[in-house]
Amino acid sequence: MTTTLPTPDVLATVDLGSNTFRLQVSRVVEDQLYPLDAMKETVRLGAGLTADKYLDDATQEKALACMARFGERLRGFSPAQVRIVGTNTLRVAKNSADFIQRAEALLGFPIEIIAGREEARLVYIGAAHSLPATKERRLVVDIGGGSTEFVIGSQFKAHVTESLPLGCVSYSMRYFADGKLSRSNFADATLAARNEIQRITTEYRPEEWQLAVGTSGTARSLRDILEINDWSASDITLEGMLQLRAELIKRESLKNVSLNGLKADRLPVLPGGLAIMIAIFEELGISKMTVAEGALRDGVLYDLLGRQREKDMRESTVQLFKRRYHVDVPQSERVQALAERLYRMVAGEDVDQDMLKRLIWAARLHEIGLTIAHTAYHKHSAYILQNADMPGFSKREQAMLATIVLGHRGDMGKMQQVVNDPALWQAVVALRLAVLFYRSRMAITLPELLDLKLDVKGFVLTMSQNWLNDNPLTASAFRQEVLQWKNVGFELDVSQL
Amino acid sequence: MTTTLPTPDVLATVDLGSNTFRLQVSRVVEDQLYPLDAMKETVRLGAGLTADKYLDDATQEKALACMARFGERLRGFSPAQVRIVGTNTLRVAKNSADFIQRAEALLGFPIEIIAGREEARLVYIGAAHSLPATKERRLVVDIGGGSTEFVIGSQFKAHVTESLPLGCVSYSMRYFADGKLSRSNFADATLAARNEIQRITTEYRPEEWQLAVGTSGTARSLRDILEINDWSASDITLEGMLQLRAELIKRESLKNVSLNGLKADRLPVLPGGLAIMIAIFEELGISKMTVAEGALRDGVLYDLLGRQREKDMRESTVQLFKRRYHVDVPQSERVQALAERLYRMVAGEDVDQDMLKRLIWAARLHEIGLTIAHTAYHKHSAYILQNADMPGFSKREQAMLATIVLGHRGDMGKMQQVVNDPALWQAVVALRLAVLFYRSRMAITLPELLDLKLDVKGFVLTMSQNWLNDNPLTASAFRQEVLQWKNVGFELDVSQL
Repeated sequence: MTTTLPTPDVLATVDLGSNTFRLQVSRVVEDQLYPLDAMKETVRLGAGLTADKYLDDATQEKALACMARFGERLRGFSPAQVRIVGTNTLRVAKNSADFIQRAEALLGFPIEIIAGREEARLVYIGAAHSLPATKERRLVVDIGGGSTEFVIGSQFKAHVTESLPLGCVSYSMRYFADGKLSRSNFADATLAARNEIQRITTEYRPEEWQLAVGTSGTARSLRDILEINDWSASDITLEGMLQLRAELIKRESLKNVSLNGLKADRLPVLPGGLAIMIAIFEELGISKMTVAEGALRDGVLYDLLGRQREKDMRESTVQLFKRRYHVDVPQSERVQALAERLYRMVAGEDVDQDMLKRLIWAARLHEIGLTIAHTAYHKHSAYILQNADMPGFSKREQAMLATIVLGHRGDMGKMQQVVNDPALWQAVVALRLAVLFYRSRMAITLPELLDLKLDVKGFVLTMSQNWLNDNPLTASAFRQEVLQWKNVGFELDVSQL
Repeated sequence: MTTTLPTPDVLATVDLGSNTFRLQVSRVVEDQLYPLDAMKETVRLGAGLTADKYLDDATQEKALACMARFGERLRGFSPAQVRIVGTNTLRVAKNSADFIQRAEALLGFPIEIIAGREEARLVYIGAAHSLPATKERRLVVDIGGGSTEFVIGSQFKAHVTESLPLGCVSYSMRYFADGKLSRSNFADATLAARNEIQRITTEYRPEEWQLAVGTSGTARSLRDILEINDWSASDITLEGMLQLRAELIKRESLKNVSLNGLKADRLPVLPGGLAIMIAIFEELGISKMTVAEGALRDGVLYDLLGRQREKDMRESTVQLFKRRYHVDVPQSERVQALAERLYRMVAGEDVDQDMLKRLIWAARLHEIGLTIAHTAYHKHSAYILQNADMPGFSKREQAMLATIVLGHRGDMGKMQQVVNDPALWQAVVALRLAVLFYRSRMAITLPELLDLKLDVKGFVLTMSQNWLNDNPLTASAFRQEVLQWKNVGFELDVSQL
């Protein structure tokens, strides 16, 4: 019954990084992507974060102006062709919800905030597509404006992913705020970075990989500077970076710095980025790092392409979670099939395919909270879905899965907000009613006649009277359900044919 | 180093049930308990719950008056001799925190609120000690005032535990509020109960056990009525209960009922209890149920006795959780040993043995949240410890473990309330500092000189300067830690010798 969408031959991605915003448009040929067009603006979003983690007004305006321009470029694209991702700064800013709403209006497409480890996975996919198809284990390091991602992977698969709060923008602001390039500023910044990295040192020690790869603007810029100034024959080396650092300390202040190979817009974030890269080399025992072109935005595109070719990472994650959380598979399959059927009935011609997928995944995972406790297990399921590292899913999607699962049981008062999103609300109701039918956890015979519709007042669930007579427990459960809804102002009508 | 407390030869337990409050004093002889004295009052706490789950004032006063009497009886007991447990009504009442504080002042000892499944486990232990030492699998059912516990166990071990919100007090109030004993009131109550029970039917089906046992006042009272009126030759049977129900319906109202074998104080909760028991028989396929004398209060005493004889259920639960959540054992053992050492240093002569145990358990489990996500894993660890079914632990203890674990990482602002409980606060600090030392997750050499003390201003951590010089990363981490504390108004001094 799944409709396979035709693969659009042009895809666009926007990466709202903490240093740079990038838009990339690519053409799809078989399973490869060829860039057609790109836009890049150094918005330096991370520099707009106040000490108490609010995004300041001036930076918001600057970012929104850029988004208006990007939005213009994206006009005419369909939602299936576009993916816009936000990373560290939008993850941590306390006022990001408001900002994102305004941004989405300008861009014309939703923004997906991705978790640190998901970012790491996508960075790896991007890098892997730009590296020779060799078999060694790679360490990929992506120093961004607000966070740094660390991945060990081989071929196209990321094995170990981490994200740490180290960024070239945040470190340059914190340790080199006045532009002073002193020995002690570098020492403080490097020590602070090593302290963070120390937490992951054992997982990333040199025995675990054979090739170190850098993917970010910081890595490209360091490689360029070291090679052009002959501080390294090729690639990034620790000795080369120490020479660069000595050179910077000699100049005393950023305003005295001009270096061959350094682009002007990278200068303000160079000292923070350099301090972090030195810390990474020292802490992880790296002697040399090559630079790959592909990065987050490419990973996002390849991931989007995979989804459309039925290799959806999210599907693998749901499978993994079913095993990890010991899901009762027959029960979850029964519930899933009925929930899907009810959702299709109520949505009619107008099935939201993305929401249907979410409903199916939510149905498969609705009982994972049982591994924490039976009492209020639906809340624990929702907690896990909201907070877990779920490769392939954005934070917003995880929040939707959590909402669908949270609503499948217990008080309906908590769903007051959800009615504003009709597709999500229908998914919640479909799962909730499906679970009610299968409360006995057995393969029961469903009513021959079964229908779910929306009328002006609310939901109408219709089934054959004979079935209700034969199943008095479920009939009583439906009577209680109707009362439950009424108490919080929702309308459910259970009618008999 | 663990001090083994001498086993007191007299133990007291108080069970603050939703129908009855009971105090029992027993003498310990070897590993058996012999009742010395008992007090019982039908407070009917569950009847004081308003529709929005607040305990009303009149019921609170009635309950507190009873507690004052119990408190008098408990005078002279030491804390190690007493255990007071609260069950369903105190679990669900939204204003129970205030009420518990007043109650504890009157009783002179802390009240432990126990989770439903823990209650089920303790009920089983109590029942098992009063049953013949046979080997069959038993189904034990305990209909309380506010919840009903279901256990399958053999010998002294509970294998499957459940707690459902069915109570003889709550059901009598909800379905027989006016004392009207109509056929339809019974039908509604039984159907509602079967709807709840249906959720656990497959786990408790007849193939899973050989002997059904009832343990509550409801079970005893039904057995007495059925036997004395010759509605059953012995034990509780479905036919007998249906005869009783027919008899009650004939009388039309509670005020017309007087039955041989029925004590006056059980009359108001008889119809709810009967409807629930009929539902249990029908839904779980029980034909006959014997009645055991031992119940929750006995289970509590045997559990207390086990703890003092080094068979602490909590220890087994921590072991189980270490496996279930894939704890990195070498790291958790390193952290645990150092946390214990730091706690003993700062507590001096005055080590709180109970808190020390909690610290040790918290240290072993502080990383369990990693199974949910790396990001903010300490919050996930705390969430699991707060919400999981943890046999042997009260809800209060789980909350303390969660607090210790939550404080081991991240912002210290969240610990502002904890300083009011000095022993808990010291445990938090001990774990936090131990984790800082072991951030590299390796078996490092600790400073030869190491000390943690409290002075008038705050904590003072002293270690050899050589060690700090040799470990600049940790030294820098301590400097950041001191700043972190200062930002939220706490004082930590790291001094060198």
